[in-house]
Amino acid sequence: MRTEFHEQLDSLIETLSQMCGLAGLAMERATHGLLQADLVMAEQVITDHEHLTRMQAAAEQSAFVLLALQAPVAGDLRVVVGSMQNVADAERMGALALHVAKIARRRHPAHAVPEEVNGFFAEMGRVAVELGNSAKEVVLSRDPEAAAKIRRDDDVMDELHRHLFSVLMDKKWVHGVESAVDITLLGRFYERFADHAVEIGRRVVFEVTGQTPPQ
Amino acid sequence: MRTEFHEQLDSLIETLSQMCGLAGLAMERATHGLLQADLVMAEQVITDHEHLTRMQAAAEQSAFVLLALQAPVAGDLRVVVGSMQNVADAERMGALALHVAKIARRRHPAHAVPEEVNGFFAEMGRVAVELGNSAKEVVLSRDPEAAAKIRRDDDVMDELHRHLFSVLMDKKWVHGVESAVDITLLGRFYERFADHAVEIGRRVVFEVTGQTPPQ
Repeated sequence: MRTEFHEQLDSLIETLSQMCGLAGLAMERATHGLLQADLVMAEQVITDHEHLTRMQAAAEQSAFVLLALQAPVAGDLRVVVGSMQNVADAERMGALALHVAKIARRRHPAHAVPEEVNGFFAEMGRVAVELGNSAKEVVLSRDPEAAAKIRRDDDVMDELHRHLFSVLMDKKWVHGVESAVDITLLGRFYERFADHAVEIGRRVVFEVTGQTPPQ
Repeated sequence: MRTEFHEQLDSLIETLSQMCGLAGLAMERATHGLLQADLVMAEQVITDHEHLTRMQAAAEQSAFVLLALQAPVAGDLRVVVGSMQNVADAERMGALALHVAKIARRRHPAHAVPEEVNGFFAEMGRVAVELGNSAKEVVLSRDPEAAAKIRRDDDVMDELHRHLFSVLMDKKWVHGVESAVDITLLGRFYERFADHAVEIGRRVVFEVTGQTPPQ
Protein backbone atom coordinates (compact mmCIF):
# COMPACT_ATOMS: atom_id res chain seq x y z
CA MET A 1 0.00 0.00 0.00
CA ARG A 2 1.29 3.45 -0.91
CA THR A 3 1.24 5.71 2.11
CA GLU A 4 1.03 9.49 1.94
CA PHE A 5 4.62 9.53 3.22
CA HIS A 6 5.85 7.49 0.28
CA GLU A 7 3.94 9.62 -2.19
CA GLN A 8 5.60 12.74 -0.80
CA LEU A 9 8.96 11.02 -0.81
CA ASP A 10 8.50 9.98 -4.45
CA SER A 11 7.63 13.55 -5.31
CA LEU A 12 10.84 14.77 -3.61
CA ILE A 13 12.89 12.22 -5.56
CA GLU A 14 11.14 13.19 -8.79
CA THR A 15 12.04 16.85 -8.19
CA LEU A 16 15.67 15.89 -7.51
CA SER A 17 15.75 13.82 -10.70
CA GLN A 18 14.37 16.73 -12.74
CA MET A 19 16.95 19.05 -11.21
CA CYS A 20 19.78 16.75 -12.31
CA GLY A 21 18.37 16.69 -15.85
CA LEU A 22 18.01 20.48 -15.88
CA ALA A 23 21.59 20.92 -14.66
CA GLY A 24 22.78 18.70 -17.54
CA LEU A 25 20.66 20.70 -20.00
CA ALA A 26 22.09 23.94 -18.60
CA MET A 27 25.63 22.65 -19.16
CA GLU A 28 24.72 21.52 -22.68
CA ARG A 29 23.42 24.98 -23.53
CA ALA A 30 26.28 26.75 -21.75
CA THR A 31 28.77 24.69 -23.75
CA HIS A 32 26.96 25.56 -26.98
CA GLY A 33 26.96 29.23 -25.95
CA LEU A 34 30.66 29.02 -25.18
CA LEU A 35 31.76 27.27 -28.36
CA GLN A 36 29.51 29.20 -30.74
CA ALA A 37 29.85 32.54 -28.90
CA ASP A 38 26.04 32.40 -28.81
CA LEU A 39 24.92 35.22 -26.52
CA VAL A 40 21.22 34.33 -26.60
CA MET A 41 21.95 30.79 -25.42
CA ALA A 42 24.31 32.04 -22.70
CA GLU A 43 21.69 34.52 -21.49
CA GLN A 44 19.10 31.77 -21.39
CA VAL A 45 21.28 29.61 -19.11
CA ILE A 46 21.84 32.59 -16.82
CA THR A 47 18.11 33.42 -16.65
CA ASP A 48 16.99 29.82 -16.26
CA HIS A 49 19.18 29.18 -13.23
CA GLU A 50 16.75 30.93 -10.92
CA HIS A 51 14.27 28.15 -11.62
CA LEU A 52 16.75 25.55 -10.30
CA THR A 53 17.35 27.64 -7.18
CA ARG A 54 13.60 27.81 -6.53
CA MET A 55 13.30 24.04 -7.03
CA GLN A 56 16.10 23.52 -4.49
CA ALA A 57 14.36 25.68 -1.88
CA ALA A 58 11.04 23.87 -2.43
CA ALA A 59 12.68 20.43 -2.27
CA GLU A 60 14.59 21.26 0.92
CA GLN A 61 11.38 22.55 2.44
CA SER A 62 9.46 19.39 1.54
CA ALA A 63 12.28 17.18 2.91
CA PHE A 64 12.12 19.21 6.11
CA VAL A 65 8.36 18.72 6.37
CA LEU A 66 8.79 14.97 5.83
CA LEU A 67 11.30 14.83 8.70
CA ALA A 68 9.14 16.96 10.99
CA LEU A 69 5.79 15.29 10.39
CA GLN A 70 6.68 11.71 9.52
CA ALA A 71 9.89 11.07 11.51
CA PRO A 72 11.10 8.42 9.06
CA VAL A 73 13.70 5.87 10.18
CA ALA A 74 16.28 3.55 8.58
CA GLY A 75 16.19 3.42 4.76
CA ASP A 76 13.43 6.01 4.44
CA LEU A 77 15.40 8.43 6.62
CA ARG A 78 18.50 7.85 4.49
CA VAL A 79 16.53 8.70 1.35
CA VAL A 80 15.07 11.91 2.81
CA VAL A 81 18.42 13.13 4.15
CA GLY A 82 20.33 12.01 1.06
CA SER A 83 17.83 13.68 -1.27
CA MET A 84 18.07 16.90 0.71
CA GLN A 85 21.86 16.85 0.31
CA ASN A 86 21.60 15.85 -3.34
CA VAL A 87 19.38 18.76 -4.34
CA ALA A 88 22.17 21.07 -3.12
CA ASP A 89 24.63 19.26 -5.43
CA ALA A 90 22.20 19.46 -8.37
CA GLU A 91 21.73 23.20 -7.80
CA ARG A 92 25.51 23.61 -7.64
CA MET A 93 25.86 21.78 -10.98
CA GLY A 94 23.45 24.30 -12.47
CA ALA A 95 25.44 27.16 -10.89
CA LEU A 96 28.61 25.85 -12.56
CA ALA A 97 26.82 25.84 -15.94
CA LEU A 98 25.81 29.43 -15.14
CA HIS A 99 29.49 30.32 -14.55
CA VAL A 100 30.40 28.84 -17.95
CA ALA A 101 27.63 30.90 -19.58
CA LYS A 102 28.87 34.06 -17.85
CA ILE A 103 32.35 33.63 -19.31
CA ALA A 104 30.78 33.16 -22.78
CA ARG A 105 28.78 36.36 -22.23
CA ARG A 106 31.78 38.33 -20.94
CA ARG A 107 33.85 37.59 -24.07
CA HIS A 108 31.02 37.98 -26.61
CA PRO A 109 31.20 38.68 -29.55
CA ALA A 110 34.66 37.10 -29.30
CA HIS A 111 35.05 33.40 -28.58
CA ALA A 112 36.30 32.77 -25.03
CA VAL A 113 37.93 29.53 -26.16
CA PRO A 114 40.64 29.45 -28.87
CA GLU A 115 39.85 26.99 -31.64
CA GLU A 116 42.84 24.87 -30.60
CA VAL A 117 41.08 23.74 -27.39
CA ASN A 118 37.48 23.74 -28.68
CA GLY A 119 37.55 19.96 -28.86
CA PHE A 120 38.27 19.64 -25.13
CA PHE A 121 35.28 21.74 -24.21
CA ALA A 122 32.99 20.01 -26.70
CA GLU A 123 33.99 16.71 -25.11
CA MET A 124 33.78 17.95 -21.51
CA GLY A 125 30.34 19.35 -22.33
CA ARG A 126 29.26 16.00 -23.75
CA VAL A 127 30.49 14.14 -20.66
CA ALA A 128 28.79 16.69 -18.39
CA VAL A 129 25.44 16.13 -20.12
CA GLU A 130 25.94 12.36 -19.73
CA LEU A 131 26.67 12.87 -16.04
CA GLY A 132 23.56 15.01 -15.56
CA ASN A 133 21.45 12.36 -17.28
CA SER A 134 23.08 9.53 -15.33
CA ALA A 135 22.39 11.35 -12.06
CA LYS A 136 18.82 11.98 -13.22
CA GLU A 137 18.35 8.26 -13.81
CA VAL A 138 20.20 6.88 -10.82
CA VAL A 139 18.17 8.81 -8.25
CA LEU A 140 15.08 7.15 -9.73
CA SER A 141 16.43 3.66 -10.47
CA ARG A 142 18.56 3.52 -7.28
CA ASP A 143 20.78 1.15 -9.25
CA PRO A 144 24.33 0.87 -7.85
CA GLU A 145 25.57 -0.13 -11.33
CA ALA A 146 24.38 3.20 -12.71
CA ALA A 147 26.13 4.96 -9.83
CA ALA A 148 29.33 3.17 -10.84
CA LYS A 149 28.90 4.48 -14.41
CA ILE A 150 28.95 8.03 -13.02
CA ARG A 151 32.32 7.28 -11.48
CA ARG A 152 33.68 6.09 -14.85
CA ASP A 153 32.39 9.19 -16.64
CA ASP A 154 34.07 11.30 -13.97
CA ASP A 155 37.37 9.56 -14.72
CA VAL A 156 36.94 10.60 -18.37
CA MET A 157 36.32 14.19 -17.25
CA ASP A 158 39.41 14.19 -15.02
CA GLU A 159 41.51 12.89 -17.88
CA LEU A 160 40.20 15.60 -20.23
CA HIS A 161 40.87 18.20 -17.56
CA ARG A 162 44.46 17.04 -17.04
CA HIS A 163 45.10 16.99 -20.77
CA LEU A 164 43.64 20.50 -21.17
CA PHE A 165 46.02 21.77 -18.50
CA SER A 166 49.02 20.23 -20.19
CA VAL A 167 48.09 22.06 -23.42
CA LEU A 168 47.71 25.29 -21.46
CA MET A 169 51.04 24.90 -19.67
CA ASP A 170 52.85 24.09 -22.90
CA LYS A 171 55.48 26.63 -23.91
CA LYS A 172 53.77 26.79 -27.30
CA TRP A 173 50.62 28.39 -25.86
CA VAL A 174 50.16 31.55 -27.93
CA HIS A 175 46.76 32.80 -26.80
CA GLY A 176 47.94 34.93 -23.92
CA VAL A 177 47.14 35.22 -20.25
CA GLU A 178 43.51 36.39 -20.45
CA SER A 179 42.57 33.34 -22.43
CA ALA A 180 44.57 31.08 -20.09
CA VAL A 181 42.69 32.49 -17.10
CA ASP A 182 39.31 31.86 -18.78
CA ILE A 183 40.27 28.32 -19.70
CA THR A 184 41.59 27.56 -16.23
CA LEU A 185 38.28 28.61 -14.71
CA LEU A 186 36.22 26.84 -17.37
CA GLY A 187 38.15 23.61 -16.86
CA ARG A 188 37.57 23.85 -13.13
CA PHE A 189 33.81 24.43 -13.64
CA TYR A 190 33.41 21.29 -15.76
CA GLU A 191 35.50 19.23 -13.36
CA ARG A 192 33.49 20.37 -10.34
CA PHE A 193 30.23 19.69 -12.21
CA ALA A 194 31.37 16.08 -12.59
CA ASP A 195 32.43 15.86 -8.91
CA HIS A 196 28.94 16.86 -7.79
CA ALA A 197 27.38 14.18 -10.02
CA VAL A 198 29.71 11.63 -8.39
CA GLU A 199 28.57 12.82 -4.96
CA ILE A 200 24.94 12.26 -5.96
CA GLY A 201 25.77 8.74 -7.12
CA ARG A 202 27.64 7.97 -3.89
CA ARG A 203 24.71 9.14 -1.77
CA VAL A 204 22.29 6.98 -3.72
CA VAL A 205 24.50 3.96 -2.96
CA PHE A 206 24.49 4.98 0.71
CA GLU A 207 20.70 5.32 0.68
CA VAL A 208 20.29 1.83 -0.79
CA THR A 209 22.99 -0.02 1.14
CA GLY A 210 23.60 2.06 4.29
CA GLN A 211 27.29 2.05 3.34
CA THR A 212 29.14 4.98 1.78
CA PRO A 213 31.32 3.82 -1.12
CA PRO A 214 35.01 4.87 -0.98
CA GLN A 215 35.92 8.16 -2.71
CA MET B 1 16.66 20.43 32.46
CA ARG B 2 19.26 19.17 30.00
CA THR B 3 17.98 16.15 28.14
CA GLU B 4 20.19 13.53 26.58
CA PHE B 5 19.01 14.83 23.19
CA HIS B 6 20.30 18.30 23.92
CA GLU B 7 23.61 16.98 25.19
CA GLN B 8 24.10 15.07 21.93
CA LEU B 9 23.01 18.09 19.92
CA ASP B 10 25.51 20.28 21.81
CA SER B 11 28.21 17.76 21.05
CA LEU B 12 27.33 17.87 17.33
CA ILE B 13 27.48 21.67 17.36
CA GLU B 14 30.79 21.59 19.24
CA THR B 15 32.25 19.28 16.56
CA LEU B 16 31.00 21.61 13.81
CA SER B 17 32.53 24.59 15.59
CA GLN B 18 35.88 22.81 15.90
CA MET B 19 35.76 21.90 12.21
CA CYS B 20 35.30 25.56 11.24
CA GLY B 21 38.29 26.50 13.41
CA LEU B 22 40.41 23.71 11.91
CA ALA B 23 39.47 24.79 8.38
CA GLY B 24 40.60 28.34 9.23
CA LEU B 25 43.84 26.99 10.70
CA ALA B 26 44.40 24.87 7.58
CA MET B 27 44.01 27.95 5.37
CA GLU B 28 46.37 29.92 7.64
CA ARG B 29 49.02 27.23 7.30
CA ALA B 30 48.38 26.73 3.57
CA THR B 31 48.82 30.47 3.03
CA HIS B 32 52.07 30.41 5.00
CA GLY B 33 53.23 27.38 2.97
CA LEU B 34 52.31 29.20 -0.24
CA LEU B 35 53.97 32.53 0.53
CA GLN B 36 57.11 31.10 2.15
CA ALA B 37 57.38 28.10 -0.24
CA ASP B 38 57.39 26.08 3.01
CA LEU B 39 57.05 22.45 1.97
CA VAL B 40 56.80 21.07 5.52
CA MET B 41 53.85 23.34 6.26
CA ALA B 42 52.15 22.46 2.95
CA GLU B 43 52.60 18.74 3.64
CA GLN B 44 51.10 19.18 7.10
CA VAL B 45 47.95 20.77 5.68
CA ILE B 46 47.64 17.93 3.18
CA THR B 47 48.09 15.24 5.84
CA ASP B 48 45.85 16.93 8.41
CA HIS B 49 42.88 17.11 6.05
CA GLU B 50 42.00 13.48 6.63
CA HIS B 51 41.18 14.37 10.24
CA LEU B 52 38.56 16.88 9.04
CA THR B 53 37.07 14.29 6.68
CA ARG B 54 36.75 11.82 9.56
CA MET B 55 35.13 14.49 11.74
CA GLN B 56 32.62 15.14 8.96
CA ALA B 57 31.70 11.47 8.69
CA ALA B 58 31.31 11.16 12.48
CA ALA B 59 29.23 14.36 12.71
CA GLU B 60 26.93 13.30 9.85
CA GLN B 61 26.50 9.93 11.52
CA SER B 62 25.60 11.50 14.87
CA ALA B 63 23.14 13.90 13.19
CA PHE B 64 21.57 10.89 11.49
CA VAL B 65 21.24 9.04 14.82
CA LEU B 66 19.62 12.11 16.40
CA LEU B 67 17.05 12.21 13.58
CA ALA B 68 16.40 8.47 13.76
CA LEU B 69 16.12 8.08 17.52
CA GLN B 70 14.85 11.44 18.72
CA ALA B 71 12.70 12.66 15.80
CA PRO B 72 13.25 16.34 16.71
CA VAL B 73 10.81 18.98 15.46
CA ALA B 74 10.76 22.74 14.84
CA GLY B 75 13.87 24.62 16.02
CA ASP B 76 15.69 21.48 17.17
CA LEU B 77 15.12 19.84 13.78
CA ARG B 78 16.44 22.95 12.03
CA VAL B 79 19.62 22.79 14.13
CA VAL B 80 20.21 19.08 13.43
CA VAL B 81 19.62 19.44 9.67
CA GLY B 82 21.50 22.75 9.46
CA SER B 83 24.47 21.33 11.37
CA MET B 84 24.57 18.30 9.09
CA GLN B 85 24.72 20.60 6.05
CA ASN B 86 27.24 22.90 7.73
CA VAL B 87 29.76 20.15 8.47
CA ALA B 88 29.88 19.52 4.70
CA ASP B 89 30.72 23.20 4.14
CA ALA B 90 33.39 23.14 6.86
CA GLU B 91 34.98 20.05 5.31
CA ARG B 92 34.91 21.76 1.92
CA MET B 93 36.67 24.79 3.39
CA GLY B 94 39.40 22.45 4.60
CA ALA B 95 39.56 20.82 1.15
CA LEU B 96 40.12 24.25 -0.43
CA ALA B 97 43.01 24.88 1.99
CA LEU B 98 44.34 21.49 0.90
CA HIS B 99 44.18 22.60 -2.76
CA VAL B 100 46.18 25.73 -1.90
CA ALA B 101 48.77 23.58 -0.12
CA LYS B 102 49.00 21.27 -3.13
CA ILE B 103 49.84 24.16 -5.44
CA ALA B 104 52.56 25.27 -2.97
CA ARG B 105 53.92 21.71 -2.96
CA ARG B 106 53.81 21.39 -6.75
CA ARG B 107 55.92 24.54 -7.29
CA HIS B 108 58.37 23.93 -4.43
CA PRO B 109 61.23 24.92 -4.12
CA ALA B 110 60.04 27.80 -6.33
CA HIS B 111 57.37 30.20 -5.06
CA ALA B 112 54.01 29.62 -6.78
CA VAL B 113 53.10 33.29 -6.31
CA PRO B 114 55.22 36.11 -7.80
CA GLU B 115 56.23 38.70 -5.21
CA GLU B 116 54.08 41.29 -6.98
CA VAL B 117 50.85 39.59 -5.84
CA ASN B 118 52.08 38.24 -2.48
CA GLY B 119 50.17 40.97 -0.68
CA PHE B 120 46.84 39.80 -2.13
CA PHE B 121 47.32 36.29 -0.88
CA ALA B 122 48.57 37.40 2.53
CA GLU B 123 45.40 39.47 2.84
CA MET B 124 43.07 36.79 1.44
CA GLY B 125 44.67 34.34 3.89
CA ARG B 126 44.08 36.72 6.77
CA VAL B 127 40.42 37.20 5.80
CA ALA B 128 39.98 33.43 5.39
CA VAL B 129 41.25 32.81 8.94
CA GLU B 130 38.86 35.49 10.21
CA LEU B 131 36.03 33.77 8.36
CA GLY B 132 36.91 30.37 9.80
CA ASN B 133 36.99 31.85 13.30
CA SER B 134 33.75 33.76 12.77
CA ALA B 135 32.04 30.57 11.59
CA LYS B 136 33.49 28.73 14.58
CA GLU B 137 31.99 31.32 16.92
CA VAL B 138 28.65 31.85 15.22
CA VAL B 139 27.63 28.20 15.31
CA LEU B 140 28.10 28.35 19.10
CA SER B 141 26.76 31.84 19.83
CA ARG B 142 23.93 31.62 17.27
CA ASP B 143 24.20 35.39 17.06
CA PRO B 144 22.71 36.86 13.85
CA GLU B 145 25.03 39.88 14.24
CA ALA B 146 28.06 37.59 14.01
CA ALA B 147 26.55 35.97 10.91
CA ALA B 148 26.27 39.45 9.37
CA LYS B 149 29.98 40.01 10.07
CA ILE B 150 30.76 36.93 7.96
CA ARG B 151 28.93 38.57 5.08
CA ARG B 152 31.03 41.73 5.44
CA ASP B 153 34.28 39.73 5.50
CA ASP B 154 33.13 37.94 2.36
CA ASP B 155 32.66 41.31 0.64
CA VAL B 156 36.30 42.08 1.50
CA MET B 157 37.34 38.73 -0.01
CA ASP B 158 35.35 39.37 -3.21
CA GLU B 159 36.97 42.79 -3.57
CA LEU B 160 40.46 41.30 -3.15
CA HIS B 161 39.61 38.60 -5.68
CA ARG B 162 38.39 41.12 -8.26
CA HIS B 163 41.46 43.28 -7.75
CA LEU B 164 43.77 40.25 -8.09
CA PHE B 165 42.14 39.42 -11.43
CA SER B 166 42.58 42.94 -12.72
CA VAL B 167 46.33 42.68 -11.96
CA LEU B 168 46.47 39.32 -13.71
CA MET B 169 44.62 40.57 -16.80
CA ASP B 170 46.81 43.67 -17.06
CA LYS B 171 48.95 43.83 -20.19
CA LYS B 172 51.94 44.41 -17.92
CA TRP B 173 51.72 40.88 -16.42
CA VAL B 174 55.19 39.43 -17.02
CA HIS B 175 55.06 36.17 -15.08
CA GLY B 176 53.76 33.99 -17.86
CA VAL B 177 50.88 31.59 -18.31
CA GLU B 178 51.84 28.90 -15.78
CA SER B 179 51.87 31.43 -12.99
CA ALA B 180 48.60 32.96 -14.23
CA VAL B 181 46.94 29.53 -14.13
CA ASP B 182 48.14 28.93 -10.55
CA ILE B 183 46.95 32.33 -9.42
CA THR B 184 43.58 31.93 -11.11
CA LEU B 185 43.01 28.66 -9.25
CA LEU B 186 44.34 30.02 -5.95
CA GLY B 187 42.08 33.07 -6.16
CA ARG B 188 39.12 30.81 -6.81
CA PHE B 189 40.01 28.59 -3.80
CA TYR B 190 40.10 31.55 -1.39
CA GLU B 191 36.89 32.97 -2.81
CA ARG B 192 35.06 29.65 -2.47
CA PHE B 193 36.39 29.21 1.07
CA ALA B 194 34.69 32.50 1.95
CA ASP B 195 31.45 31.48 0.19
CA HIS B 196 31.18 28.36 2.34
CA ALA B 197 31.66 30.41 5.51
CA VAL B 198 28.81 32.66 4.34
CA GLU B 199 26.62 29.58 3.80
CA ILE B 200 27.32 28.45 7.38
CA GLY B 201 26.33 31.89 8.67
CA ARG B 202 23.12 31.89 6.62
CA ARG B 203 22.12 28.48 7.93
CA VAL B 204 22.68 29.56 11.53
CA VAL B 205 20.30 32.49 10.91
CA PHE B 206 17.78 30.03 9.45
CA GLU B 207 18.15 27.72 12.44
CA VAL B 208 17.50 30.60 14.86
CA THR B 209 14.75 32.45 12.99
CA GLY B 210 13.24 29.85 10.63
CA GLN B 211 13.86 32.34 7.80
CA THR B 212 16.68 32.07 5.27
CA PRO B 213 18.36 35.47 4.80
CA PRO B 214 18.67 36.72 1.18
CA GLN B 215 21.86 35.76 -0.67
